[in-house]
Amino acid sequence: MTWTLTNNELTPKALLNLESLFSLGNGYLGVRGNFEEGYRPEMVSIRGTYQNAFHDVIEIPYGEKLYAFPGTQQKLLNVIDAQTIKIYLGDDEEEFSLFAGEAVAYERRLHLDRGYSERTVHWRSPGGKEVKLHFRRVVSMTVRELFAIDLRIEPVNFNGKVKVVSTVNGDVSNFADPNDPRVASGHTKRLQVEEAGEKQGYVYAVDRTLASGLKTACVSRHTATGAADIKSRSGETVLTFHLTEPIRVTKWNVYTDTLRHRENLVDQAIGIHERLGGLTFEDVLDAQQAYLDEFWVNADIRIEGDSSLQEGIRFNLYHLLQSVGRDEYSNISAKGLSGEGYEGHYFWDTEIYMFPVFLMTKPDIARQLLIYRYSTLDQARARAKEMGHKQGALFPWRTISGTECSSFFPSGTAQYHISADIAYSYIQYYLGTQDEEFMKTYGAELLFETARLWLDMGHYLNGEFRIDNVTGPDEYTCVVNNNYYTNAMAKHNLKWAAKAYALLADIAPEALDRLCARLNVTKQEAEAWQKAADCMYLPYDPELNINPQDDTFLQKAVWDFEDTPEEHYPLLLHYHPLTLYRYQVCKQADTVLAHFLLEDEQELGTIRNSYNYYEKITTHDSSLSSCIFSIMASKLGYDAKAYDYFIETARLDLDNTHGNTKDGLHMANMGGTWMSIVYGFAGFRLKESGLSLAPAIPRQWDRYSFRLHYRGRKLAVDIGRQSIRLTLEEGEALTLKLYGDDVTLERNRPLEQALKAN
Amino acid sequence: MTWTLTNNELTPKALLNLESLFSLGNGYLGVRGNFEEGYRPEMVSIRGTYQNAFHDVIEIPYGEKLYAFPGTQQKLLNVIDAQTIKIYLGDDEEEFSLFAGEAVAYERRLHLDRGYSERTVHWRSPGGKEVKLHFRRVVSMTVRELFAIDLRIEPVNFNGKVKVVSTVNGDVSNFADPNDPRVASGHTKRLQVEEAGEKQGYVYAVDRTLASGLKTACVSRHTATGAADIKSRSGETVLTFHLTEPIRVTKWNVYTDTLRHRENLVDQAIGIHERLGGLTFEDVLDAQQAYLDEFWVNADIRIEGDSSLQEGIRFNLYHLLQSVGRDEYSNISAKGLSGEGYEGHYFWDTEIYMFPVFLMTKPDIARQLLIYRYSTLDQARARAKEMGHKQGALFPWRTISGTECSSFFPSGTAQYHISADIAYSYIQYYLGTQDEEFMKTYGAELLFETARLWLDMGHYLNGEFRIDNVTGPDEYTCVVNNNYYTNAMAKHNLKWAAKAYALLADIAPEALDRLCARLNVTKQEAEAWQKAADCMYLPYDPELNINPQDDTFLQKAVWDFEDTPEEHYPLLLHYHPLTLYRYQVCKQADTVLAHFLLEDEQELGTIRNSYNYYEKITTHDSSLSSCIFSIMASKLGYDAKAYDYFIETARLDLDNTHGNTKDGLHMANMGGTWMSIVYGFAGFRLKESGLSLAPAIPRQWDRYSFRLHYRGRKLAVDIGRQSIRLTLEEGEALTLKLYGDDVTLERNRPLEQALKAN
Repeated sequence: MTWTLTNNELTPKALLNLESLFSLGNGYLGVRGNFEEGYRPEMVSIRGTYQNAFHDVIEIPYGEKLYAFPGTQQKLLNVIDAQTIKIYLGDDEEEFSLFAGEAVAYERRLHLDRGYSERTVHWRSPGGKEVKLHFRRVVSMTVRELFAIDLRIEPVNFNGKVKVVSTVNGDVSNFADPNDPRVASGHTKRLQVEEAGEKQGYVYAVDRTLASGLKTACVSRHTATGAADIKSRSGETVLTFHLTEPIRVTKWNVYTDTLRHRENLVDQAIGIHERLGGLTFEDVLDAQQAYLDEFWVNADIRIEGDSSLQEGIRFNLYHLLQSVGRDEYSNISAKGLSGEGYEGHYFWDTEIYMFPVFLMTKPDIARQLLIYRYSTLDQARARAKEMGHKQGALFPWRTISGTECSSFFPSGTAQYHISADIAYSYIQYYLGTQDEEFMKTYGAELLFETARLWLDMGHYLNGEFRIDNVTGPDEYTCVVNNNYYTNAMAKHNLKWAAKAYALLADIAPEALDRLCARLNVTKQEAEAWQKAADCMYLPYDPELNINPQDDTFLQKAVWDFEDTPEEHYPLLLHYHPLTLYRYQVCKQADTVLAHFLLEDEQELGTIRNSYNYYEKITTHDSSLSSCIFSIMASKLGYDAKAYDYFIETARLDLDNTHGNTKDGLHMANMGGTWMSIVYGFAGFRLKESGLSLAPAIPRQWDRYSFRLHYRGRKLAVDIGRQSIRLTLEEGEALTLKLYGDDVTLERNRPLEQALKAN
Repeated sequence: MTWTLTNNELTPKALLNLESLFSLGNGYLGVRGNFEEGYRPEMVSIRGTYQNAFHDVIEIPYGEKLYAFPGTQQKLLNVIDAQTIKIYLGDDEEEFSLFAGEAVAYERRLHLDRGYSERTVHWRSPGGKEVKLHFRRVVSMTVRELFAIDLRIEPVNFNGKVKVVSTVNGDVSNFADPNDPRVASGHTKRLQVEEAGEKQGYVYAVDRTLASGLKTACVSRHTATGAADIKSRSGETVLTFHLTEPIRVTKWNVYTDTLRHRENLVDQAIGIHERLGGLTFEDVLDAQQAYLDEFWVNADIRIEGDSSLQEGIRFNLYHLLQSVGRDEYSNISAKGLSGEGYEGHYFWDTEIYMFPVFLMTKPDIARQLLIYRYSTLDQARARAKEMGHKQGALFPWRTISGTECSSFFPSGTAQYHISADIAYSYIQYYLGTQDEEFMKTYGAELLFETARLWLDMGHYLNGEFRIDNVTGPDEYTCVVNNNYYTNAMAKHNLKWAAKAYALLADIAPEALDRLCARLNVTKQEAEAWQKAADCMYLPYDPELNINPQDDTFLQKAVWDFEDTPEEHYPLLLHYHPLTLYRYQVCKQADTVLAHFLLEDEQELGTIRNSYNYYEKITTHDSSLSSCIFSIMASKLGYDAKAYDYFIETARLDLDNTHGNTKDGLHMANMGGTWMSIVYGFAGFRLKESGLSLAPAIPRQWDRYSFRLHYRGRKLAVDIGRQSIRLTLEEGEALTLKLYGDDVTLERNRPLEQALKAN
């Protein structure tokens, strides 16, 4: 069943990973797939509930702290636990647990099409009592504060007293693993209970962070069928039943926080409860289904011929939707809302690996992601100053609230490209939507300020504009001069800042004047952006006909791959950064990524040679790499490779191939899967010249199809083994490039054409 | 008086600095110049006693800890305080303090020629009692464990009871300044009292470190003249006098520690006391004087025409002698034994800036400094492995016990040159002593293992041997390829490893065989060292005719010095490292230093152009810089500059020009002063071809003179305004180069020759 993730494992290791896989979320609220009743005490569990961007501020320790090293960072917090429900059977109160007695039958399911998860259990207690339990849980896509759990208990051989104890626990901590640098190693207890109590049948807790001053609240109420007694007090609700027929408890949890709800968190939560008052759990599921129906219509990729892959792709898209923030405070964490890896920070992953999915399937969310960055622009301006720039905006390498949270600058702050990556997403948004209003209100300002950064950052040498001392995407090569990726992206950034200036001068001269007056931007400055773009130095080696990753990359020795044992990968866990920097070895796509994002900068021959060159020295130790190699292999007609790279990543989390799915899902990789198909196999590109496609089909597939949003239109793409069929389902007639040739689509008049072989 | 440092300041700021200036030490034990009776409670004091290399182990915190980042570091500890003596006058016990009543007269003196300090005070108590006090203190150069204080009190208008309370306090901490990254910011309380008591009239304390497991003890006894009563108990001795005539107390403190004395620390200290039993304080001063007489005969530089400079130079040499470790556990801390800056770590400062002083004036100590590094060779081998090398020894950038203590690798571990610097000092030692036995036992092994590091570290490209990803001495330019300094020093290292191999093959083939068998060194390997040396790539720019600092240095923009406000220096306190790395700006001599240490690598024209080039972009934000520019200005005949650079540093600590003398004296700069004169003005060099001189005299001076040890000889150099006079005072006839020409000296037959003008 490709719409349902099913599992019945109960080993400790599997359960820990499944907590991530079965996590639920709505971009605001995320709940890991923990068992309501818990495991055995000695089993490791990351019991987690998260509100996107809800964080504490934590001091960063340094052995030697130099100027402008960030003094603090933010950390996404595990908030109040409302998952817990304990069940006791009989007068002897035998506690339900899947690790006591016997699980006669057990299965859990995550419904990607309906947006909820469920667990069905046929359990025999150690004392022989048999019941069937059915847990369902949903984090609502339409009421962002709502997380509801529905429990049904059906008698098998047991009739008698059933006690259900449901808690709201504010005494929570984050998870720590001192042995893995990719997981936080301390600062686990950052929330303290400020208030806990019971009020009009609502059980609630309010927590406050130690340092950031933020507060969060969870307010729960219970509805039940067949209850003999319901008692609530601070922290818990106890429901007593006499089980003869199926009984049912629904736990309604509403979360609020001071970032969004400002104050009176409990009262506001009660208000939300009251507005929901008449709804049943099934009503919530219906609304959820309606939301998801619409999502899948636009976002689904159908693959015929490989159900395992079909599952993987839908799973990825589903989790992207669950993780993406929809307000100015939040974005997409590296691990979404499914775990605590990377402290819940936002990286360039959003703009380069996930934004395109939303831009082409759900542009309202894409827009919201841009707004988040715009809301941190002042902090980026301040950071640029602190970093010695006279002007411009430097976005933080990792952050939640907008300040730099990376403590190791060679692979943190030095990745200046993030500012160009953000600019790139603004440009893509404009190309995909032609949203001039957005450009006027947000886009131009962001493009101007990032362009200013590059102008201050770089310098001219012999007529070429050069950018020194940055780190590109490849973190195995840090702090270099003229990183090809960075220079190419900065060039694009500068060029589009000048374009945005010209555009506004054309369509909204008064708005431009106001903006320029506010930012002190002049026409001369816009010309200087264009000039720097025109003069941008892009490293090129004529002998190899490739773009060197930076000025000195090709002069270094090549890593000794032959003598590197299998168990030394990923290299960063076995070699000091200096060792890695000393060699030609790449953690991930760098120049190859630039060739994807800006393919018109180079001849195809250069792109091909570069791909061949870098492929030999790239370890793909980053989960951001294989999808890019897949896309570029598609472009270059390396079909087998394209598929191999794609397959490596499409089920990364489902199969836990990186071994750390327990810490949360690899969100960027999930976006990368979509891109491998749409940009890769289907050869989609979005450029100033418009939309283009150059579809191929992997030999393993019979057919695949997807839809794209484009400037108010909806385009259905359906690719079979022999032919491609394009249908403009909504919007005005569209001319696009198919295999390089213009074709024009009229609404609902499908175009069918033969598939071109490579 | 150029042999005596005199001072009578009592402001809080002055006193804090004077604690460093008036510190006493003997290479093992160091005591800051604190007042016995203390200051006012609110005045900041760094009350310090140190045993060289006595340290605790402390965790290094990281925001993001990557592979092979050192987990711990060492920290020199402030040990048991035996300085404290309180004095109470009269039956009302008025407590002596220079901040109560009136200091009718006050002065303190540090006797550079006699090796002790004293304080004379004429004090009137708030109640009107007048006494004269005379404190003297000595840290013995001949009994390293001994620190003695002698106190004499003379009545003026007061006769009556005097109570002297003298303490031994093991409850001590290190100093912390959270506002200065160059001072430790935490971990102040690392010693706990393990035992304290009284035994046979001895008062003692034993302290144990929290983590390293080391112990230290201080055992004190008192002798007195005119005491009515002496009572000792744990922690203190109380002496009561009836003051009618001058009275006297001598406090004898003996320190032991488990690094050197292994166990039974108190008993061993008592044993030392007993061996000293018959001595008076004057006896100790006599022995001290004899030791210093011999030191000054060899080490003194006499300058006629500038008494302030004369004082500065002697002050520096004196403190070098006080700070230099004389056993295998210890070396010279960046701040000597005079303070706690840089955690008491040893750096390359020793080999490049201080070792030459000892080599040419007191070679037994120079030898001991080499032994210290040799004793850490196994740790250097282990570190090389950890840093991904298949062979060789990589010495730590900063350390006490031999493991890497630098937490910020771009200007720490990446300074691989330290291994070549240490090799350089071994080579210089051989050139200065022809000590073949030492080469056989220690030198060859160290040269082989460091050469192996370079061979593993570098690689061939187009026939050139290149070394990537290192940081040279200039910490404003980090992690670059082919740093000229590093490559030149590595070349020298490799060449001399091959030479040492050939030497041993010649003079001690069996010892060589044993060594090679133990290290698995082959003849082919020695040839590979020679080949790498021969093929070493040294960056050269034909257009400018200079040696670029590294492969990309000249392509970067030049720092905007014009727009950098005065108060932004030192730059490292006002700019992020990335900002500094992005520009041509040097913290200190780098290529210029290489041109000094290895002057025969380049034509004079290249050296001159390089000097002129780098001078413009060097801030001398490091105290290791000006002396090198002075030496090279001398070489190039820039006499005025040579003097200006020299004068900037000669009295750095005496005048507190860097503002942080309170944290300890700048030891390397002190060595640099000597070098500016001997290598700079006198044009001394020590090479394989022998010893050479090319003297000049600053126009501010009338005459200067010094002595040099050289291969068992003693050479007196006396330079006047018109002529130079060389006298071989000891040893066999010597041929040396004077202004490039061979001259031969016979014992006690002075050679006089006219001074050559530039």
